[in-house]
Amino acid sequence: MTVSAGRVSRVVVTPVAFRDPPLLNVVGVHQPYVLRAIVQVHTDEGLVGLGETYADQAHLGRLEAVAAALPGADVFDLHGLRRIVAEALGESTGGAGASFGGMLEVSSAVDTVVSPFEVALLDLQGKAMGRPLSDLLGGAVRERVPYSAYLFYKWAGHPGQEDDDWGEGRTPEQLVAQARRMVDEYGFTAIKLKGGVYEPRHEAETVEALADAFPGHKLRIDPNGAWTVGTSVEMARLSGVLEYLEDPTPGIEGMAEVSKHTELPLATNMCVIAFEHIKPAVAADAVQVVLSDHHLWGGLRRSALLGGICETFGMGLSMHSNSHLGISLAAMTHLAASTPNLTYACDTHYPWKTEEVVKPGVLEFRDGGVAVPRGPGLGVELDEDALAALHEQYLKCGQRGREDTAYMQSIVPDFTPNTARW
Amino acid sequence: MTVSAGRVSRVVVTPVAFRDPPLLNVVGVHQPYVLRAIVQVHTDEGLVGLGETYADQAHLGRLEAVAAALPGADVFDLHGLRRIVAEALGESTGGAGASFGGMLEVSSAVDTVVSPFEVALLDLQGKAMGRPLSDLLGGAVRERVPYSAYLFYKWAGHPGQEDDDWGEGRTPEQLVAQARRMVDEYGFTAIKLKGGVYEPRHEAETVEALADAFPGHKLRIDPNGAWTVGTSVEMARLSGVLEYLEDPTPGIEGMAEVSKHTELPLATNMCVIAFEHIKPAVAADAVQVVLSDHHLWGGLRRSALLGGICETFGMGLSMHSNSHLGISLAAMTHLAASTPNLTYACDTHYPWKTEEVVKPGVLEFRDGGVAVPRGPGLGVELDEDALAALHEQYLKCGQRGREDTAYMQSIVPDFTPNTARW
Repeated sequence: MTVSAGRVSRVVVTPVAFRDPPLLNVVGVHQPYVLRAIVQVHTDEGLVGLGETYADQAHLGRLEAVAAALPGADVFDLHGLRRIVAEALGESTGGAGASFGGMLEVSSAVDTVVSPFEVALLDLQGKAMGRPLSDLLGGAVRERVPYSAYLFYKWAGHPGQEDDDWGEGRTPEQLVAQARRMVDEYGFTAIKLKGGVYEPRHEAETVEALADAFPGHKLRIDPNGAWTVGTSVEMARLSGVLEYLEDPTPGIEGMAEVSKHTELPLATNMCVIAFEHIKPAVAADAVQVVLSDHHLWGGLRRSALLGGICETFGMGLSMHSNSHLGISLAAMTHLAASTPNLTYACDTHYPWKTEEVVKPGVLEFRDGGVAVPRGPGLGVELDEDALAALHEQYLKCGQRGREDTAYMQSIVPDFTPNTARW
Repeated sequence: MTVSAGRVSRVVVTPVAFRDPPLLNVVGVHQPYVLRAIVQVHTDEGLVGLGETYADQAHLGRLEAVAAALPGADVFDLHGLRRIVAEALGESTGGAGASFGGMLEVSSAVDTVVSPFEVALLDLQGKAMGRPLSDLLGGAVRERVPYSAYLFYKWAGHPGQEDDDWGEGRTPEQLVAQARRMVDEYGFTAIKLKGGVYEPRHEAETVEALADAFPGHKLRIDPNGAWTVGTSVEMARLSGVLEYLEDPTPGIEGMAEVSKHTELPLATNMCVIAFEHIKPAVAADAVQVVLSDHHLWGGLRRSALLGGICETFGMGLSMHSNSHLGISLAAMTHLAASTPNLTYACDTHYPWKTEEVVKPGVLEFRDGGVAVPRGPGLGVELDEDALAALHEQYLKCGQRGREDTAYMQSIVPDFTPNTARW
């Protein structure tokens, strides 16, 4: 018997936009919409595999180039996918292939562009075999993947719009209330605060208020490099209540300097976001925890490689999130479930979202986690009507990239990013 | 449709012995027989997956403990296999789980014991899917895997037996003749000389004779740590004719010292043979090429991880061999074919062997390489009669471990290993 799963016959890339609250960060504020690209890989045997990624213009162009080159490919040939992507990109491999408000820098877009197609091919493999995707990654070592509550300082609403139902998030009390709602609704036992917005003393007070209000919870703060080395070391004195401190200061060198002066594990999704960054980070002992992200790291198999590298070099492993939809949540959950040393609760922006492209019922948060989907492949099904509606929203919304700083400056003209400000 | 591939119903571990010529090395000489264990993993759906590993007594005991614990396991649950092995071994994880004439040292046997079972489970997965095993490792990036001619200094025959048809291998001329036969018969374009047997000048002359006789061929020498740091540096002056120099001197520290004084890449299968050795080797810049070996490194997926680590840290990747049968050759070929950065010709002892347990026709050397089997899983089939005969030979031969030094001393009483002798 042969489960060929077939060859790729057609690839459809659909940009979508979904509404997002005005969440504040080091480089500005989230725009009214998040852009994502939904990738559908069809095979000549009638199966469809799903992937999800960024949808900035430059990245979309690259996705389309690969979509045009992929038909004929064997769905099991993941190495071949990589060759196809490298050839399709040609010389234009610079940059992350997606913007992150200028926060991140990698030298090649190959891994970023490979990612949604690799997830879709693995989805197809799983569907052909009638096996959940986690089985293709060595099998789930946990039935439920823990996620963290992801708190943001925020405005009550986008300027010119009604307030959203989360309301303002500025004071420690407001952030405690935000956490309370997330914890009550989803059962989270870990809490991450996105910092880098207010001066460090204020953010420290927020962390302390959270520690008081949630005494058994794991706490983290991520100021996205808003602090100097000196401030970072001082803020690390919060260590009594923090599980880890994420990207207090920019760059491998700065992080290494902070690391010398604290026992608190330093985590990163900024100075180690591609394989090329690992060797220098290890040499400098710059970070103790790497936040993986299959969108950036070349898909699920390459993220498993990152996990193995972290284990080999004695670094911890957690998981980063950008705003995302259910295809990504399913992929993140399969990956985390089948990565033995991914023992931290993963980040997710999922609770901030009110729109979706996958049919409901599979991805439910309970006790702070998401059960690994048991259906074939990713285990989620695309809702074609929802996809069409969110694509329509993309066409109408006018956004074509992620521009946190420009959007902030349209409201607060003298704003400049807080990177290493304090 | 679901390809379950089923659950493990029964595991059979069969020790076998096959005849081996008196090949010389740093710790002694190969005994008249090589011991291997053939692992057959049966499922409740009637499939059988194959694995092959060492068969020293201590290792066999560990394999039997796992064989008893494995029934009921899902053939896709590779992480679960690892847990089962760790539990079955309990506290007795010390040592490599197999002897290598005292040449190697690792702190845990888990990877060594996992290996044949992991290969068998992947063989089962491939069989259930009707897909070659390489497809489960991301797909073959080459249709044919190049191997190297593996030359040995040797006696004409085992004492008390007739000479074998390779005859004596002692002088440069005799080694050139040995190489000529291998190159003519198999088409090898890379040649490795096992050294550490004679004083370095003699071995250098052999390398020079090979370079003269095979001007286009890639050459390597592996004295298994027979040399001091000083001698190693001097021998590295052979660099004009060598592709890499393998384990000239023992230990990460010694290799790092040699490495400082030569541009020639240093390779190892002695100081980096487990994941625990990678971090210190990278920190010391001790080696530039790691020889993988799925028997030691926990199977095919973990060997792919090693490949990814080498790529990430800028190290080359080659492949080591101990004496082996066709199940291992098939596994090595699938692994090498699906590891993009495994660009060196792999080692193999295969041409030295006259007996086999798999049916003929699949694993043929042509143009110095082996075509990746296209059948499901490993693509090789066990010959039950041959297995029974080689098991009978195991029972009769009296050997129960690999004892190169003891065997040598039974013939040359004052022999001691040549480690760091010159």
